[in-house]
Amino acid sequence: MEIFLFACKFIKFKEVFKLNEAFMKRALEIAEKGSGYVNPNPMVGAVIVKDNKIVGEGYHEKFGGNHAEVNALNMAGKDAEGSELYVTLEPCSHYGKTPPCALAVVKAGIKRVIIAMEDPNPLVSTKGIKILKENGIEVITGVMKKESEKLNEVFIKYITTKRPFITMKMASTLDGKICTVSGESRWISGQTSRKYVHHLRSKYMSIMVGVGTAINDNPLLTTRIEGENVRSPIAIIVDSKLRVPKDLRIFNTLQERKIIIATTEYADKNKENELINMGVSIIKTPNKNGRVNLDYLLDELGKIGIDSVLLEGGSELNFSFIKEENIDKIMCFIAPMIVGGEKAKGAVGGKGIEKLKDSIKIYDMDSEKIGEDILVSGYLNRG
Amino acid sequence: MEIFLFACKFIKFKEVFKLNEAFMKRALEIAEKGSGYVNPNPMVGAVIVKDNKIVGEGYHEKFGGNHAEVNALNMAGKDAEGSELYVTLEPCSHYGKTPPCALAVVKAGIKRVIIAMEDPNPLVSTKGIKILKENGIEVITGVMKKESEKLNEVFIKYITTKRPFITMKMASTLDGKICTVSGESRWISGQTSRKYVHHLRSKYMSIMVGVGTAINDNPLLTTRIEGENVRSPIAIIVDSKLRVPKDLRIFNTLQERKIIIATTEYADKNKENELINMGVSIIKTPNKNGRVNLDYLLDELGKIGIDSVLLEGGSELNFSFIKEENIDKIMCFIAPMIVGGEKAKGAVGGKGIEKLKDSIKIYDMDSEKIGEDILVSGYLNRG
Repeated sequence: MEIFLFACKFIKFKEVFKLNEAFMKRALEIAEKGSGYVNPNPMVGAVIVKDNKIVGEGYHEKFGGNHAEVNALNMAGKDAEGSELYVTLEPCSHYGKTPPCALAVVKAGIKRVIIAMEDPNPLVSTKGIKILKENGIEVITGVMKKESEKLNEVFIKYITTKRPFITMKMASTLDGKICTVSGESRWISGQTSRKYVHHLRSKYMSIMVGVGTAINDNPLLTTRIEGENVRSPIAIIVDSKLRVPKDLRIFNTLQERKIIIATTEYADKNKENELINMGVSIIKTPNKNGRVNLDYLLDELGKIGIDSVLLEGGSELNFSFIKEENIDKIMCFIAPMIVGGEKAKGAVGGKGIEKLKDSIKIYDMDSEKIGEDILVSGYLNRG
Repeated sequence: MEIFLFACKFIKFKEVFKLNEAFMKRALEIAEKGSGYVNPNPMVGAVIVKDNKIVGEGYHEKFGGNHAEVNALNMAGKDAEGSELYVTLEPCSHYGKTPPCALAVVKAGIKRVIIAMEDPNPLVSTKGIKILKENGIEVITGVMKKESEKLNEVFIKYITTKRPFITMKMASTLDGKICTVSGESRWISGQTSRKYVHHLRSKYMSIMVGVGTAINDNPLLTTRIEGENVRSPIAIIVDSKLRVPKDLRIFNTLQERKIIIATTEYADKNKENELINMGVSIIKTPNKNGRVNLDYLLDELGKIGIDSVLLEGGSELNFSFIKEENIDKIMCFIAPMIVGGEKAKGAVGGKGIEKLKDSIKIYDMDSEKIGEDILVSGYLNRG
């Protein structure tokens, strides 16, 4: 009998609840539309559900704009009363560019809030949930938490460490070479991968290369997507001795985007002034074994609001980042070709790690097809 | 009206036919059970279907044993009369170790034969089909042809070229290194991958390494699968100057398997005799730029019935094979780690290919998870 009663209770509970991951999935889906526009804010999506139907939805569309909840509430209007809100991130509790969303949710008469993840910002985390609960709203957290964390991996890193999220992007042959013995590297990865990389660039706030790559490849480091007018990321060149020639192609892009050169005391003062006059920003770091101190640089980048860096090499800079364990994510495009060569460069050069037990581990490594290439991606620093 | 009649005809046709890929899939499935036991014969599976039910099935179980069709017919007995036979390879037409299967099929009263692929052996191809047709049996070919060709990629290569099918197996870090700068390589690939490689070894007739790998790694090159008594492949060491030390661990395995050393005129005659006395087989090839002539070697291996080679490095030998376009398939286990190092070895060394346009292309490249590693595989020489 007791079991029967329990079962009845459970069925009723389920019925009242109507917890539906499909709605959270929708919220995550629309949240992603803010990708590349909201940095250094998080991407957030919100869906308002009444009688199992969506009556309002919205997302955080651009930095400084309405929060997702506000857009969804505006769409729902009076339908918000007595409804359920699915939101990918805990509603905010503070007066910032907009009033606290938690209060807006209370005012609208929402009866239940389903949250994917709590706010990772230690200063405000769970405060929004507290406001909701204090106002008699039922709150459920952790629904599709992992997916929401993945969506906002950049924001979580930045808000908790004040440093940018670093993705190391490599493109190699199946035998691990980024160029032939003669240095030829255009193109190893296929057209689809290269398009994909331009989409990546549009989502990262900055792109970084070493001075060797800047000189040898003379790249533009802009975002070029056919038919779309997309912003180019801030370009960062790591150049301890300020060797960079002033006539690189990249300096023609100073009108459309910021260029930062990270250097050290070894920089020639005159050259530094010339570059500054051209409009280039210089970040001077203490030297570390004669090179740019990357830890210092990342702190500085964080301070000026750069939440993400797409690291595009070369192999020396990659190794410095790897060795100092400053990489968050790795994306390796593997092309269907073999070039061999003992002296052909790999993606990560430098002195290398001596012992396998000291190797840098990759977590959650996975692969997918991108055109004819295979993209292998994974995370570091999750031990 | 005409369309209606055509539709009726088509429906009737389908009904009589009952062509069902599921039966061919089953035939392919049981064919694979012969893997590692039938070389250099093909793997073949046969399923006999009556009234949409399997009444007999069989596969080619071991070299010299019954063909698949005979095993299936034996199981079906009188039920074979008026039934359909699904078989992964065209029934044979010649008196070999067993009488021609095509005649056995005719005698059993099979009314329809569905064949995945024709016999790739140019000497007998389509002769079996001809016998069937001449005896009033309906024959359909090409059902799941691609799958059958993949299953018998080794056989197809061997029967059409008289040379072994070569699979280059590599294991590298995500940054393309097969060892650290200090030469440490145990273990880069994970336990699951290493187990998988032992299964591979049990399916290849031979395994090949260069003398550098034989000396540096001192490997056993045997098949070790817990709880199973599996044969080890014939070991082939490529050693142009016969530098191989007589006390390598591998020579302790001479009781259980054949060991071949491929060398040239540069081999010391006394050492050669000593090795022969130990039970080692020597294949002498003309020298090609001071090295073993691989084309000659592969012809010789084909002549002694070796249909498949699992090439396990090192990087110099890999490059020779790559450069001379003697690889059929590539299997690259990518481990979730980074070691870096300009001087750390990649899987394919040597002088390397200078121009990207001359790079060796990989076709049908695909990836799958093997434990924590990713296995990327593809085919060469399909341009």
